[in-house]
Parts: sequence; C-alpha cells; structure tokens
Amino acid sequence: MRAISQDEFGGPEVLRLVELERPEPLPTEVLVRVHAAGVNPVDFKTREGSGMAGVLGKPPFVLGWDVSGVVEQVGGGVHTLAVGDEVFGMPWFPRAASAYSEYVTAPSRQFARKPANVSHAEAAALPLAGLTAWEILTAAAHVKPGQRVLITAAAGGVGHLAVQFAKQLGAYVVGTASAGKHEWLRGLGADEVIDYHSTAVEDAVAEIDVVVDLIGSETTSTQALAVLKPGGQLVAVPSGTSAELLAKARAAGVHATGFLVEPDGHALGEIARLVEAGDVRVEVEQVFPLTEAAEAHRRMASGRTRGKLVLDTIS
Amino acid sequence: MRAISQDEFGGPEVLRLVELERPEPLPTEVLVRVHAAGVNPVDFKTREGSGMAGVLGKPPFVLGWDVSGVVEQVGGGVHTLAVGDEVFGMPWFPRAASAYSEYVTAPSRQFARKPANVSHAEAAALPLAGLTAWEILTAAAHVKPGQRVLITAAAGGVGHLAVQFAKQLGAYVVGTASAGKHEWLRGLGADEVIDYHSTAVEDAVAEIDVVVDLIGSETTSTQALAVLKPGGQLVAVPSGTSAELLAKARAAGVHATGFLVEPDGHALGEIARLVEAGDVRVEVEQVFPLTEAAEAHRRMASGRTRGKLVLDTIS
Repeated sequence: MRAISQDEFGGPEVLRLVELERPEPLPTEVLVRVHAAGVNPVDFKTREGSGMAGVLGKPPFVLGWDVSGVVEQVGGGVHTLAVGDEVFGMPWFPRAASAYSEYVTAPSRQFARKPANVSHAEAAALPLAGLTAWEILTAAAHVKPGQRVLITAAAGGVGHLAVQFAKQLGAYVVGTASAGKHEWLRGLGADEVIDYHSTAVEDAVAEIDVVVDLIGSETTSTQALAVLKPGGQLVAVPSGTSAELLAKARAAGVHATGFLVEPDGHALGEIARLVEAGDVRVEVEQVFPLTEAAEAHRRMASGRTRGKLVLDTIS
Repeated sequence: MRAISQDEFGGPEVLRLVELERPEPLPTEVLVRVHAAGVNPVDFKTREGSGMAGVLGKPPFVLGWDVSGVVEQVGGGVHTLAVGDEVFGMPWFPRAASAYSEYVTAPSRQFARKPANVSHAEAAALPLAGLTAWEILTAAAHVKPGQRVLITAAAGGVGHLAVQFAKQLGAYVVGTASAGKHEWLRGLGADEVIDYHSTAVEDAVAEIDVVVDLIGSETTSTQALAVLKPGGQLVAVPSGTSAELLAKARAAGVHATGFLVEPDGHALGEIARLVEAGDVRVEVEQVFPLTEAAEAHRRMASGRTRGKLVLDTIS
C-alpha cells in the first residue's frame, strides 16, 4: 500500500511516498481502507522532532492520527462493526501513528460510525480536533450553561469546533480571529468575535469563566489571566504553554491546566451525533492528494487556515 | 518491580518471579500500582502457546489482563483520573499483557473507577470476565426482556456474571452447573439450574432464545442446537469452538457466532455502577500471592472453580 513516511526529522521535504505492507487486523481490531486523513499541528511538530516524536521514537514512521474510511476486514471478536461500514477515528494516539496511508488497523472501539451527512474528507477533519475541543470543554473545564467562554484561534481546526460545542453546552462564546473570519464565526454561533490584530483582548472582554487557549503563547496566557473571573479556568494546549506560565496563572487565582487529547470512541460517537443532527459543522479548507502531504504541512504551518486540511488517500 | 514472566511456552512451572523496570506513563496514560490481578483461562492457554500467544509473540512476556489498583502517576493530558484514584481495567488486551506485576501503564480510558464497595481482589476479577459477559449479552446477542437465555458453565468466572447481567436485562435465565453450585446460582438470580452430570440439557429445557456457551465443546454446541428456537442465537467463546460446529449451527437455522472480548472503558463503567448498586456480585474463590501464580494456573486448569481466581500483587 502507498503511505507517506519519513527517514529523518526535518522540514516538509522529508515526507516521501513509500510502499509498505498492508497491515493485518489482530483479534478485536478492524482493517480500514483510509479514504481521507486529517492533518494536524501535532503532525508537523512531530515531523520536526517535537510534538509526539518522544513517543514515536526515531524515524522512519508514518504520520497522522485522523482517519475516515471503510471497514475492509474485521478481526476475531469484533461485534460492533462489519465489513463495509463507514467509520472515522483517531487510531493509536499517541502510541503510534498511521493515518497517512491507504490502510490502517486499530481496535474497533477506537472508531465510531461516520456521520452519514458528511464526506470522508470532512469526517477525517473531526477526530483529533473534535475530541480536543470536546474534552477541553467537558472533561477539563466542565463548561456549564450560561458560562462565558473565550476561545483563542477560534477559526482554526480545533477552534471552530470548540465554538460550536460550547454553544451546544449553553455557553456564551467569545472568539478571537482575524477580521476576515468574523462573519463565518458568527454563523457558527459565536456571540462575540475579537480581531486580535486591532484590539487588545483584555480591553474587549471581562468576567470570563473559561479560557480555551489554542495558541498558548505568553501573550495569550497573560491576556487570559487579565480577563478571567477569580476562580475561573484556563485550559491551554500544551504546545507552547510553558510550566512558568501555568504557574503564573495559578498564582493569579485561576485554575490552569495544559491539555492533550485522549482517544475515546464513545465521545467520537457523541460528536458524530451532533454533526449528523446538523448542530455542528466541520470546515475543511482544502483537500490535498496524499502525494502532496508536504504541501499540506507547509500550508498548515502558515497558521492562516480556516478550519482543517485533509489528505485524500483514495485518488 | 516484581513481575511473573516466562521464558518459554509450557506448563505452570515456566512462570517465574523476575525483577523488571517500572514502566513510565506516556502522554494520555496512567501508571497504576497493581493491588490485584485476575487470572483467566486465556492466561493459561497463552502460557502454553495457544490463546493470545499468536498476538503476544514469543516469550519472554508477562501474562495477565485484569487489573485493580491505585493511580500512582498520570501522564500529560489525563483529565479523567488523578493520583490516588482506585481503578480497575483490562489494559492492552490483546496487544500486550502486563497484569501479573506490581505496576502497569495504559491509556487512562482503558480504566474505570473501582466500585467503592468491593475489594481490589474482587474488582480484579471483573474486567475480562465482566466485559465478556456484558458484550456477549448486549453487543453480540442483543438480549431483550422476557427472552429465555441458557448459560453453560454458569458458575464460572464469566458465567456467574452473565447470569446476573442477563437478569438485569430482564431475561429468564437457565444455567448449567454441578449440583453443589445450584443454590448459590439461584441466589444470584438464575431461574433454573441444570446439573449436566445427571441431566441431558436437551431433555430439561426448550424454546431458548439465546445460548451463551462458555464451554464451546461439541457436546454443548450440539445441545445448544437442540434447545434453541428457530432464529435463536448461539454465542460461543472462541476457544474450543470449531468453525465446523458454528457452520453446523448455521445450517440448523440459528445465528451462531464465536466471541472474543473487546476492551471498553465505558462498558466497564456500566459494570461498576451495577456492582456499586448491589445489583451484581462478583465471586472470588481464592486469592493467591503473586509468587504462587503457577499454583493459581493449576487450580484454574482444573475447571472446578466457583467464580474467579485472583493474584495479590501487594503483600
């Protein structure tokens, strides 16, 4: 089967097309023909040698944790899925990666049924970003109806889903994004949108219960401390969020935690239901052929995307 | 840390106490101090070179998939568990085994909170047997209220839990067991109990909707075909259930499937709630010190146990 592998850490140019043996599903596992693979910031960080490189070890390895595809074969003991089922999931995160390829195997419970009303490209954009947004708001921040939630980088892959999930949870949602994305974010349900280029966030909002900081820079963390209520909560993606900043937040009387997504097939089923009901939309900015994974990584590193980037592993 | 390992396939005598390095939790994983490890038939089959030996590969390896213990350390991104939490689970089944040791690491979502009203030994008896019973009745057989369910080896580790879960699902439950265990099984809710030593099952019951065959021999499968309604369902544990027998069942007009348990932290949470509510009791026949794992295997291979055998990994 075709896959994108790398022999060394480095820039996008280390990604290259290889032929690998098709994996076999073990008992309790399914073999999935990948139709689309999501691209995430953790992918290019891992490619460079940070991100999950410490977990994956040295190259060669195949990147990618977001999969949408069709069950091609089931191992012994699989009862919840059958050959031909359309599924999506985040297999093996973070122990191993495998999505940038034509076939993956993983325990059946790491997948959920693909929402029928979205394409494989859209479904492949959901697992890592969707679970990140969902788990931040539920398991980490326990967002309650009526709470005021600030989301930085609200137009990004995680952000645009976090905006919609927070609305589903009954929150009042403020997002930061560049001006060109404001109307789109309001259409997704954001109550207020702040242009961080022209406006200091701490001048524009206050009395925030939960900050979901998807940038995790010194600037955004300092702003979070300024706008949070006493006893409020800052959840920051771990990349870029230093221990010092988190300690500073704690000293300022707010609960601060770094965040890393956990695989959860049941939560993925919840997300699928929200998408299938039309309550949550997933935005794919661009689909690249598998062979152009390097180009997708360059695009993602620009930081200017709206929604997600996806690799097409079929055509 | 102390662990029971084996350097070759063979009898109970290959199990030996070794010192291994304590594992470190990766991001999304927890390190659990194991207090008790359940012993299952798949353990001694794997020890001999069948069971999950095809998945684990050649020794040396540590056996065991049933764990109850206390969270000692959490990796990055773990939000649902904290240091000091009492948990139980079936980590890594069937990809790797690790329970016969003082510490294990696994993704936090492979654990659930230990029911507060049972000991670690009792909780360690629940995951593999409980999930097997639960998934057979729900995901595989879809048992509905009022259905007649026959469970063979009803007094065993899986069987005694299947009897109770089937009652919780509203079924009429018939079990097979030797006469000395009948009163106990009735106390667990069995509506009828058949002594297979003195009575032919097909003479004692009929019009069964679902047979849960935990023996999977030619005798029990033939009996299952005789007592099942047309369109009924036979679910047999895979060990001992040949493809020919399953084909014969299908030819007789009943749905027949082999079964292998799948890890599912959410289902484990359901089981914990049933146990904590006092609706389901878990029976531990005997607790062995970790150093006597070989003795526990000999006892289990006798086939005469009532409920489960457990290793104490603390004292």
